[in-house]
Amino acid sequence: MNILVINGPNINMLGKREPDKYGQISFYELEDLVREQAEKYDMDIDFFQSNSEGDIVDCIQKSAGYDGIILNAGAYTHTSIAIRDALLSINAKFIEVHLSNVFAREPFRHHSYLSDIALGVIAGFREDSYLMAVDYFANGVWQ
Amino acid sequence: MNILVINGPNINMLGKREPDKYGQISFYELEDLVREQAEKYDMDIDFFQSNSEGDIVDCIQKSAGYDGIILNAGAYTHTSIAIRDALLSINAKFIEVHLSNVFAREPFRHHSYLSDIALGVIAGFREDSYLMAVDYFANGVWQ
Amino acid sequence: MNILVINGPNINMLGKREPDKYGQISFYELEDLVREQAEKYDMDIDFFQSNSEGDIVDCIQKSAGYDGIILNAGAYTHTSIAIRDALLSINAKFIEVHLSNVFAREPFRHHSYLSDIALGVIAGFREDSYLMAVDYFANGVWQ
Amino acid sequence: MNILVINGPNINMLGKREPDKYGQISFYELEDLVREQAEKYDMDIDFFQSNSEGDIVDCIQKSAGYDGIILNAGAYTHTSIAIRDALLSINAKFIEVHLSNVFAREPFRHHSYLSDIALGVIAGFREDSYLMAVDYFANGVWQ
Amino acid sequence: MNILVINGPNINMLGKREPDKYGQISFYELEDLVREQAEKYDMDIDFFQSNSEGDIVDCIQKSAGYDGIILNAGAYTHTSIAIRDALLSINAKFIEVHLSNVFAREPFRHHSYLSDIALGVIAGFREDSYLMAVDYFANGVWQ
Amino acid sequence: MNILVINGPNINMLGKREPDKYGQISFYELEDLVREQAEKYDMDIDFFQSNSEGDIVDCIQKSAGYDGIILNAGAYTHTSIAIRDALLSINAKFIEVHLSNVFAREPFRHHSYLSDIALGVIAGFREDSYLMAVDYFANGVWQ
Amino acid sequence: MNILVINGPNINMLGKREPDKYGQISFYELEDLVREQAEKYDMDIDFFQSNSEGDIVDCIQKSAGYDGIILNAGAYTHTSIAIRDALLSINAKFIEVHLSNVFAREPFRHHSYLSDIALGVIAGFREDSYLMAVDYFANGVWQ
Amino acid sequence: MNILVINGPNINMLGKREPDKYGQISFYELEDLVREQAEKYDMDIDFFQSNSEGDIVDCIQKSAGYDGIILNAGAYTHTSIAIRDALLSINAKFIEVHLSNVFAREPFRHHSYLSDIALGVIAGFREDSYLMAVDYFANGVWQ
Amino acid sequence: MNILVINGPNINMLGKREPDKYGQISFYELEDLVREQAEKYDMDIDFFQSNSEGDIVDCIQKSAGYDGIILNAGAYTHTSIAIRDALLSINAKFIEVHLSNVFAREPFRHHSYLSDIALGVIAGFREDSYLMAVDYFANGVWQ
Amino acid sequence: MNILVINGPNINMLGKREPDKYGQISFYELEDLVREQAEKYDMDIDFFQSNSEGDIVDCIQKSAGYDGIILNAGAYTHTSIAIRDALLSINAKFIEVHLSNVFAREPFRHHSYLSDIALGVIAGFREDSYLMAVDYFANGVWQ
Amino acid sequence: MNILVINGPNINMLGKREPDKYGQISFYELEDLVREQAEKYDMDIDFFQSNSEGDIVDCIQKSAGYDGIILNAGAYTHTSIAIRDALLSINAKFIEVHLSNVFAREPFRHHSYLSDIALGVIAGFREDSYLMAVDYFANGVWQ
Amino acid sequence: MNILVINGPNINMLGKREPDKYGQISFYELEDLVREQAEKYDMDIDFFQSNSEGDIVDCIQKSAGYDGIILNAGAYTHTSIAIRDALLSINAKFIEVHLSNVFAREPFRHHSYLSDIALGVIAGFREDSYLMAVDYFANGVWQ
Repeated sequence: MNILVINGPNINMLGKREPDKYGQISFYELEDLVREQAEKYDMDIDFFQSNSEGDIVDCIQKSAGYDGIILNAGAYTHTSIAIRDALLSINAKFIEVHLSNVFAREPFRHHSYLSDIALGVIAGFREDSYLMAVDYFANGVWQ
Repeated sequence: MNILVINGPNINMLGKREPDKYGQISFYELEDLVREQAEKYDMDIDFFQSNSEGDIVDCIQKSAGYDGIILNAGAYTHTSIAIRDALLSINAKFIEVHLSNVFAREPFRHHSYLSDIALGVIAGFREDSYLMAVDYFANGVWQ
Repeated sequence: MNILVINGPNINMLGKREPDKYGQISFYELEDLVREQAEKYDMDIDFFQSNSEGDIVDCIQKSAGYDGIILNAGAYTHTSIAIRDALLSINAKFIEVHLSNVFAREPFRHHSYLSDIALGVIAGFREDSYLMAVDYFANGVWQ
Repeated sequence: MNILVINGPNINMLGKREPDKYGQISFYELEDLVREQAEKYDMDIDFFQSNSEGDIVDCIQKSAGYDGIILNAGAYTHTSIAIRDALLSINAKFIEVHLSNVFAREPFRHHSYLSDIALGVIAGFREDSYLMAVDYFANGVWQ
Repeated sequence: MNILVINGPNINMLGKREPDKYGQISFYELEDLVREQAEKYDMDIDFFQSNSEGDIVDCIQKSAGYDGIILNAGAYTHTSIAIRDALLSINAKFIEVHLSNVFAREPFRHHSYLSDIALGVIAGFREDSYLMAVDYFANGVWQ
Repeated sequence: MNILVINGPNINMLGKREPDKYGQISFYELEDLVREQAEKYDMDIDFFQSNSEGDIVDCIQKSAGYDGIILNAGAYTHTSIAIRDALLSINAKFIEVHLSNVFAREPFRHHSYLSDIALGVIAGFREDSYLMAVDYFANGVWQ
Repeated sequence: MNILVINGPNINMLGKREPDKYGQISFYELEDLVREQAEKYDMDIDFFQSNSEGDIVDCIQKSAGYDGIILNAGAYTHTSIAIRDALLSINAKFIEVHLSNVFAREPFRHHSYLSDIALGVIAGFREDSYLMAVDYFANGVWQ
Repeated sequence: MNILVINGPNINMLGKREPDKYGQISFYELEDLVREQAEKYDMDIDFFQSNSEGDIVDCIQKSAGYDGIILNAGAYTHTSIAIRDALLSINAKFIEVHLSNVFAREPFRHHSYLSDIALGVIAGFREDSYLMAVDYFANGVWQ
Repeated sequence: MNILVINGPNINMLGKREPDKYGQISFYELEDLVREQAEKYDMDIDFFQSNSEGDIVDCIQKSAGYDGIILNAGAYTHTSIAIRDALLSINAKFIEVHLSNVFAREPFRHHSYLSDIALGVIAGFREDSYLMAVDYFANGVWQ
Repeated sequence: MNILVINGPNINMLGKREPDKYGQISFYELEDLVREQAEKYDMDIDFFQSNSEGDIVDCIQKSAGYDGIILNAGAYTHTSIAIRDALLSINAKFIEVHLSNVFAREPFRHHSYLSDIALGVIAGFREDSYLMAVDYFANGVWQ
Repeated sequence: MNILVINGPNINMLGKREPDKYGQISFYELEDLVREQAEKYDMDIDFFQSNSEGDIVDCIQKSAGYDGIILNAGAYTHTSIAIRDALLSINAKFIEVHLSNVFAREPFRHHSYLSDIALGVIAGFREDSYLMAVDYFANGVWQ
Repeated sequence: MNILVINGPNINMLGKREPDKYGQISFYELEDLVREQAEKYDMDIDFFQSNSEGDIVDCIQKSAGYDGIILNAGAYTHTSIAIRDALLSINAKFIEVHLSNVFAREPFRHHSYLSDIALGVIAGFREDSYLMAVDYFANGVWQ
């Protein structure tokens, strides 16, 4: 099984950015934690991060070969129909994850253009949001 | 560690109810799966189900002794301020879970009176939504 | 054919409650009228009334054996997703009835969480709303 | 007792039009069924159908001599204040009927300019909606 | 000077229709009063009434020869873009009049598709609304 | 008969203020025109103008002795509940007038806190709006 | 005079629950304070508390014998049409009270389904809200 | 192939009506242009124009024999559910056309009751909007 | 303890103004009742009334020396951010009172710009609303 | 060049009022700072402050002789159409200034009735907001 | 004549992406079809596609030399004010085209930030939408 | 002190783009003016412009070393949560500037995702908006 983790804008600032909302581990520590979790299941895992909506669309279009996607689209979750369309264009099986509890923040973060076409949503558990998604792809009943 | 699982209205119909949305395992099989997962971590786990908003409020008020709550409030997720207040009254640490992807359903299921005071939200993974919550209480960084 | 009549909150106050809106016959007279109408068709008919949303959900879950339900959910018509879900969970064939013309009253009574999953809606004919529903189950083209 | 049945736009297409929503009997069969039901009660019954809002207004203005009106205004239910005013201008006693369950269709069909001034509303029972209205005018407690 | 008075749906019911809102004089008495007022100014005056939106559009299209129009579009005031377009198509100089005070009635009567392209609006003075409009066309500073 | 004309904020700027909207006669010329019209009917007429909401409330409270009020509340039309309450407190018979066609201007000028308790509304005829109101008080059927 | 005090969901948690919002006295101390205040006026006073909407409806239906009701419906204030209907069904004379200032909290607490049918509303004075209501029933001009 | 062109209210005023929005060719020139274009493809073409919503509904009901409809419903585009229902009743293949760019005009012209059931929409190209529709019926991939 | 009572627009009309909403005692009788109640507690009490928003702002700015304010801002309750800011500028301890039950009146009276910064709100008890506020300042737990 | 600085309600409380929002310098210190800045450019500068909407309207009407206005309308920014109209009536060249960042405060402070007719808006720089406006009138490209 | 065709995000997936919505021809086949159509008119035609909003803005800024633009902005149609501004910055003559009938899809696709500044809109004809635009630039009356 | 000036999409078109809204100086002249103003204060100043949301996010992430940012995000002001998050991620001290008066333009330009986290906002003074921001960073009381 091979899984792609896509992180959107400002996720690369993890550790530096509002630690009360996002936690104190760095972006690279996050990637390491996810990679370790994937290795437990002999899962191949790749990472992509970009601050550009267009680059994320490009990346998704090329990811049809992956068994699943773990997607934290960051701010684009709430504004990007283009990312939605890219996911639909490859009929992606993806899990929407968020580090913070988006429902406890500004109202404009309560709506997602992606949730209704996701397998499911995991929000608010910081780095554990990603690890749960890895676990689900490895063990879950989705296939 | 002791955890309480609270299931709201119609969750007891699992297996009989709209299987394309909720899956085919029965409510008792769900409880068994959760109990088995908890046993992996030597976690004490109790279950409560009711179709009555008031009974769920009563139950939450008495659950201050638990380390955490896994809460699938079902339809009351979207209509009950009383359950919100009960959770606040005991300063509950709880995870909101849903079997189905509520964001892919009717608009009135997109709003939750509970999400913003939860540790986090897990939706759409059927029985796995509960198992992820058990895992998080066992291994997560929340404490 | 066996039919269940479910009456929600405050319908039991019929006769005492705002007679200009609901008419002057008592709740027991209403039940008698409905029973008499059912007897004309050799229809078995049972009655349930509760002021509790949870009890109505319980009742609906256990009513899968009935051929049809005549449902006046009273105020819960406008606020209860739990009752909607209970009806869906047993794939209920039901008719939504109202004593008063809900569309001529406060705006919050103009929306129903139940109408779109009902066979149909009958509102405003006082006790006759129930009798029409009995007639329809006996003679209508619904089966 | 004499009753007028008014059918609005496109009701004359019954049988040809979207049979899953409106059923398969033809418009003339519908009129026959209603006429037969009326004859059971020795009720005089007349029929009017038009696709024109203005013609329906004209018809209503001239119908003050009838004891009651059974009105399926079709699409004009949701857009015509003129028909509402015509009904008010003769202080009409009328029942609003619909073949389909309008509450299960597009949102713009959920609002009616007529319901709040009707005796009551019957929706979703196909041709039986009309028959129930005939029964009510014959037997109901409205007079 | 020649003026056309156009009356929309149900205005012909004047005197019979809700006399507390519209007054007790009949439609023909209204026309007589307006004609008498016009004669004071040697103004030619014609009358048109229809319950049909299309007929009113037809009439307006043919009225380019008039110096001005006094228009009570009745219920179509609130729903007809077609009448608005007809008025624009002949660049009509018209006054919008209402017998009743539309602002004291149902909210859907508070909006007009015609007001912003009228010379002005006169509402609430019953038959005097028309007489004021006649006076204005005769004496006003609009030309 | 004695009538009070109340003009609200910025009406005193007439002639200087946006002449394409309000016309070119001055505020004093307006008062003269109204006085002349009143004299035709032997009507006593008084004038009050203020830019202060409170002063207008004071004035209305003291005007219970007048037979009628011609009120152009200017911008306060759209924002002042206090003026509404003052008019109600003396059960005022008043006509709402506007120089410009408020319905052809910014959306916030389309709503009035006063219209529904007025005898009627006259808008868009510049100084003639006042003269029509004088005529109505002299000749109308309101008394 | 006999008065019934009805407390809704989570009021029984008083003292344990968010003391910055609700104060530190316990629910039983609250009842004692109210009882003492009632005794000053030789007023008979009874108490009812429930977390169940249905039980509160039941209680109200049976309380027709009381001269007045002091009602803190807690979260149900904002969601329960059933409680509204129960109050209407016995034509209850009741005062709506709140411990906290609901207008300073989440927007969904700013609307009440009960206020417009209450004698009046008292909010924000913690236990004193109840004592004021007792005083009013004893001394006020409401009878 | 035979095609019906239906033009709604005020389209017959073309050339006389607001030439900056609709262009300067007359309605008859428009019909000629469309006829000539159809002749290029040996397409049979008929024309219907009415200012009456009901007449347009009548016309559509009788047009089941045509291969396709080119429909400019004018103002009724934005207000008529009856025309929508007529189109659905014959399962019409139609193209919605507009002379002007409706999206650059008043907000009430931005919504159409017809677009979602059309083959497609062409707006803003004046007479060319019709010609493009003819071309599409002749050459397009729709059949 | 010294308390200031501020009454806003039209409260001075008490007794003359809509007695079914506000009661029949006069404004001066109201002041006398409040003064008598204050004397029971040896409370110094002053009164201010104005119909002018600006004068009320002036008054509040100068009232920093008072221990508390009883404020019935009348219509300005619903429209004045300036009064809100004045109260904030002196960090006022005030109680919002209303003679009538504002929640049973027009929708624009349901919102207050003041409630969320008040100690609490008392509405609907006519003159008793003020007396309760006096009692609270004398005996309450607010200090 | 002569410039008028108009300050609206509660600006005179500067220094005493919510210093975290408005800063700690007093109103008189603010005026001194502005005067000193004006003197750098040999600009004549006058000051006006009032808590009354009407007085501000009066002041603006009389200020046609000034080259420009620096306007902090305080709370009236968000509620006063009268001040907007006064500015329009003299075709004022004015800059809207705010001490605090209004966009970071309550939603009702995010809308201004004045911004769209201002030369520009400066908000959030405390006393510097005024000094920037002085600089702009002295050096800017606006004339 | 030279024309630029700009395709936005995910249009390059044509043929792979949701063929029931977008058809089965590939993106390159689409470009070939458009090129062939252009050649019929000796029209020079260039193509640009990007998934990046910024790149599309860059491209538009540099396209001032083209006689016209055919623009399918894909998802950015509904979210990008930047693309709107780029089009305005070069005063572009462009036609908005869509492969699918956007009005038959999710509500967030019903609004366009581009339509009101386009020459016109063509939606729903799959590849023919582009060909019609080419035809119009070649033959239409737009120049 | 070192300051970064970030210009968003289409600002580089200055001089070519809608000169009545944005003025006639070119983008490079704007940069020169800002650089000259900065030199007056011995302020180091850098410039960045991009039409890409992602590139602006990248730039902001790397700008933590600057003392302040002058940000004209252009169209992204109204649509980009990603830029908001980038600013929050470095805890940026920034001033939001606009060349045109955004409040006098289309409604979708009245909302900013950035204003509430800015030091302040300056809009409508064309190139002077930037110069004021430079002045403020040099002289203001913000540090």
